Amino acid sequence: MSIAISEIFGPTIQGEGALIGVPTLFVRTGGCDFRCSWCDTLYAVEPRFKADWTPMSAEAVMTEVNGLSGGHPLLVTLSGGNPALQPLTELLELGHAQGYTFAMETQGSKVQDWFAMLDHLTLSPKPPSSGMAFNRSRFEASLAAAGDQTQVSLKLVIADEADYQWARDVAAGYPQLPLTLQPCNPSPATPEQPDLETDTESLNSRLRWLVDKVTADRWFNARVLPQLHVLIWNNERGV
Amino acid sequence: MSIAISEIFGPTIQGEGALIGVPTLFVRTGGCDFRCSWCDTLYAVEPRFKADWTPMSAEAVMTEVNGLSGGHPLLVTLSGGNPALQPLTELLELGHAQGYTFAMETQGSKVQDWFAMLDHLTLSPKPPSSGMAFNRSRFEASLAAAGDQTQVSLKLVIADEADYQWARDVAAGYPQLPLTLQPCNPSPATPEQPDLETDTESLNSRLRWLVDKVTADRWFNARVLPQLHVLIWNNERGV
Repeated sequence: MSIAISEIFGPTIQGEGALIGVPTLFVRTGGCDFRCSWCDTLYAVEPRFKADWTPMSAEAVMTEVNGLSGGHPLLVTLSGGNPALQPLTELLELGHAQGYTFAMETQGSKVQDWFAMLDHLTLSPKPPSSGMAFNRSRFEASLAAAGDQTQVSLKLVIADEADYQWARDVAAGYPQLPLTLQPCNPSPATPEQPDLETDTESLNSRLRWLVDKVTADRWFNARVLPQLHVLIWNNERGV
Repeated sequence: MSIAISEIFGPTIQGEGALIGVPTLFVRTGGCDFRCSWCDTLYAVEPRFKADWTPMSAEAVMTEVNGLSGGHPLLVTLSGGNPALQPLTELLELGHAQGYTFAMETQGSKVQDWFAMLDHLTLSPKPPSSGMAFNRSRFEASLAAAGDQTQVSLKLVIADEADYQWARDVAAGYPQLPLTLQPCNPSPATPEQPDLETDTESLNSRLRWLVDKVTADRWFNARVLPQLHVLIWNNERGV
């Protein structure tokens, strides 16, 4: 029951979504059932990088987490790849016993009972521009698995007009979920170009476009947020 | 009982603090009891701009708000200047009756009974670099006036090491308040240079510095957020 770990880093701040700005440690798992066209973490997704992922026990992960936090519990963010592919029950038990809280982000394509043990769950189904399909029944099973003790929020990445219309439709079905809209980074770093410089002007113009759309449509329960880490750390890894 | 209005604009998104990313209309009042060294809204502060402020009734403000929102209620953000200097009871009553919610930001130097009518109150006492003094008893009277129906949060602007140490001290006294730390914009637009271009690199390096401080000190209940509107709209007014 080992966990495939791509990287563990921090503390830093969460750069996106409902917990933007909150200090956190990242535990990134390796392996994903999706291949989004604009994926910014292919090194944690594609099987050709499997040799870079370390199989770790829950105890070993918590030892590394405690080393980074100095034993001062904080929010741990489980990201990927798709962390929902991993066996995380024991990690959540151990971490909670030590005072940590856990947020996880997943597309909602794989459902696990242990979603109910998370403190925060961000469901981020992928829009048309990703090239992936939205499986509504699995999304709803993810919601059901989270139950009502886990704070669930919805995060939708938007690259273009078609994504925007799709997001309107998806979000309308789940008005109870806090919603963040995030402009897509059109030039993510890739394994081939890990130091690719952020096109800040293009990111900002997409953000302005999205704010204009949302306010013109009076979509007032949608929060619009960029990826702060991309703006301030320029695509760099490990921050 | 008219309200001195500097500007009303939006809808746009809130660029800072606990409600970052949330669609909102801004109602900026004119007049302030402070003169912070790095003030970015002197046009709503200094008496020499008084002729630019329009005395408006609560009804007139709501007429303009409804014109901008198309009659679709949303969050109204009361800013300034110091909006706590204004008579806002009637505006809050009228707006609430029409379905609007209200967030206000003030330094906590002037206390009003109507703080309890706000949905959100951001108290932002000013750090040493502002040149202004922190009046703890008025701050605590502001907290008491807000009561427990208003969501109160603390926002501390940090320009340098002395501000940071001051923020540590102030925040330690109010652990119950959600806390945002915000790096100070070292080159705000001024009435003389309203189009001053943002020094994005300097802003980002201050944000990185602050994240490093907060994580090194394991100050894990502090949220660290920039002023998004400065990054994406480059100091421009009215967005």
